[in-house]
Amino acid sequence: MAATSARRVFLEKGALVGGGLLLTGPAVARASGDANEVLRTLNSLRTIHGNFSEKEIPEAEVETVLQTSLRAANASNMQSYSIVVTRDRARMKELCGYAGSCLMVFCVDYNRSLASARSLGHSYSAEGTESFVTGAVNTVLCAQTAVIAAKALGIDSLLTNGIHRGDMERVWRILDLPEQACFPLIALVLGYPTSPPEYRKGRLDGAGVIHRERYHRITPQEAEEITRRYDDPREHLGLVDDWKAGGHAHYLDWFFKEWVGRRGPLPTGEAQMQRLLRRCGFVDSQK
Amino acid sequence: MAATSARRVFLEKGALVGGGLLLTGPAVARASGDANEVLRTLNSLRTIHGNFSEKEIPEAEVETVLQTSLRAANASNMQSYSIVVTRDRARMKELCGYAGSCLMVFCVDYNRSLASARSLGHSYSAEGTESFVTGAVNTVLCAQTAVIAAKALGIDSLLTNGIHRGDMERVWRILDLPEQACFPLIALVLGYPTSPPEYRKGRLDGAGVIHRERYHRITPQEAEEITRRYDDPREHLGLVDDWKAGGHAHYLDWFFKEWVGRRGPLPTGEAQMQRLLRRCGFVDSQK
Repeated sequence: MAATSARRVFLEKGALVGGGLLLTGPAVARASGDANEVLRTLNSLRTIHGNFSEKEIPEAEVETVLQTSLRAANASNMQSYSIVVTRDRARMKELCGYAGSCLMVFCVDYNRSLASARSLGHSYSAEGTESFVTGAVNTVLCAQTAVIAAKALGIDSLLTNGIHRGDMERVWRILDLPEQACFPLIALVLGYPTSPPEYRKGRLDGAGVIHRERYHRITPQEAEEITRRYDDPREHLGLVDDWKAGGHAHYLDWFFKEWVGRRGPLPTGEAQMQRLLRRCGFVDSQK
Repeated sequence: MAATSARRVFLEKGALVGGGLLLTGPAVARASGDANEVLRTLNSLRTIHGNFSEKEIPEAEVETVLQTSLRAANASNMQSYSIVVTRDRARMKELCGYAGSCLMVFCVDYNRSLASARSLGHSYSAEGTESFVTGAVNTVLCAQTAVIAAKALGIDSLLTNGIHRGDMERVWRILDLPEQACFPLIALVLGYPTSPPEYRKGRLDGAGVIHRERYHRITPQEAEEITRRYDDPREHLGLVDDWKAGGHAHYLDWFFKEWVGRRGPLPTGEAQMQRLLRRCGFVDSQK
């Protein structure tokens, strides 16, 4: 009876995973019910846009999310990031345009290493593009681990680059960030939604997303297929459902004209972000 | 009896989580045993350095990892990344210096969106630093989700920037990447270790890593405490255990002199990575 029960639980868990992928193939045979629970959590990730409730996350759970996030891999175990946590909803809104129960701003940050080097009398530099790219990878590995740890505790999330919109200097000012070797990369809002999303967002998974052995340049036919998938309301790939109202033949027409178009022509020369990255020391000088 | 059994399983699972953090506080009361299984998986993440066995990951599991990785959040649901998968161990070694059963190269990649825009007759540009930074965040969110999905299936991993060492153009050549709007950001080697790591790597989690409400600049005392923590063999924070052999007073002396020092003085002017990012179109021109 124990075996029957275990099998029933396993099948129930498997059935909850999107796409039914886990019900076939060797993955099922190898994965334990527990492992499928992890995959089920990953498949249940969703973004909450703006409608976080007033309900607060207990401080101990915020701490669990933070501690768990640090388990992500990082280069040379120097953790070239830092996390600024705020629970003040007004400051969250000012920082990124959204507010939940908790905001974590994940920064590429070499200041701790610089302080260690200074403390021991070593010369050390975290300057240049390569430092930024390495640090950015470490930072986002940590951020996504936080997202998943939160989800494990029933906490939903919004990752937003709202900190990069408008006057970015406000982020340095509000959080009192060091001007050098510290760049606020991505903001994570955590909380509980007032109502769950109506559907699970789709994802493209075919040509142009996953390449086998060599990069495959998508064909005109494949581009048309992508246009068709964005148009299919069952796929839930788009940002809006009412794109037809604007007289567009395809969702991607709406996307390129209305959504991308809203930002106007791209500025020439160096934009705000690169100027601030340069101030951080994260841009090589051009010879 | 069912309740007793459930409690026993819950406690067993809780006890496996590092640091005992989950055994106290509201997090425990709220988290189900299943949720703790996710935290346990995150806490069990580890990096395998070089000693991957010859055992192969079944193709269906590689597919599960890929499909699950796509569930990560991404800006405007345009998935500005792509993943090149290879199962050829010789090519893995050539690409990143390591070989396992599978290599996934996660690239910032706007070529699919550019093809869509072309297909529909829209002008669209993915140029500039901001495109790169947004794309890089999307790319690494996806990569870390792949790491965790793999771990859920009992597959270990190594995230490496080995693709950025030596002549980086080989990565474009071997994988036939587009020169523009596509940058190989991080490589993920997947497989099974010949022997498990002897210990779990430690992480710094105090001053200078997590900031509350405002950035805290670490004090000389805190810098000394960090030096002490790296020196403590029980913390397992360092890259090597034999740093004393070189006559160093502290691990961080070894790190700054021997490890960082091995790369020699930093080049002045634009280094390879930024030159290639510029070719991609991901660097703003300076006015």
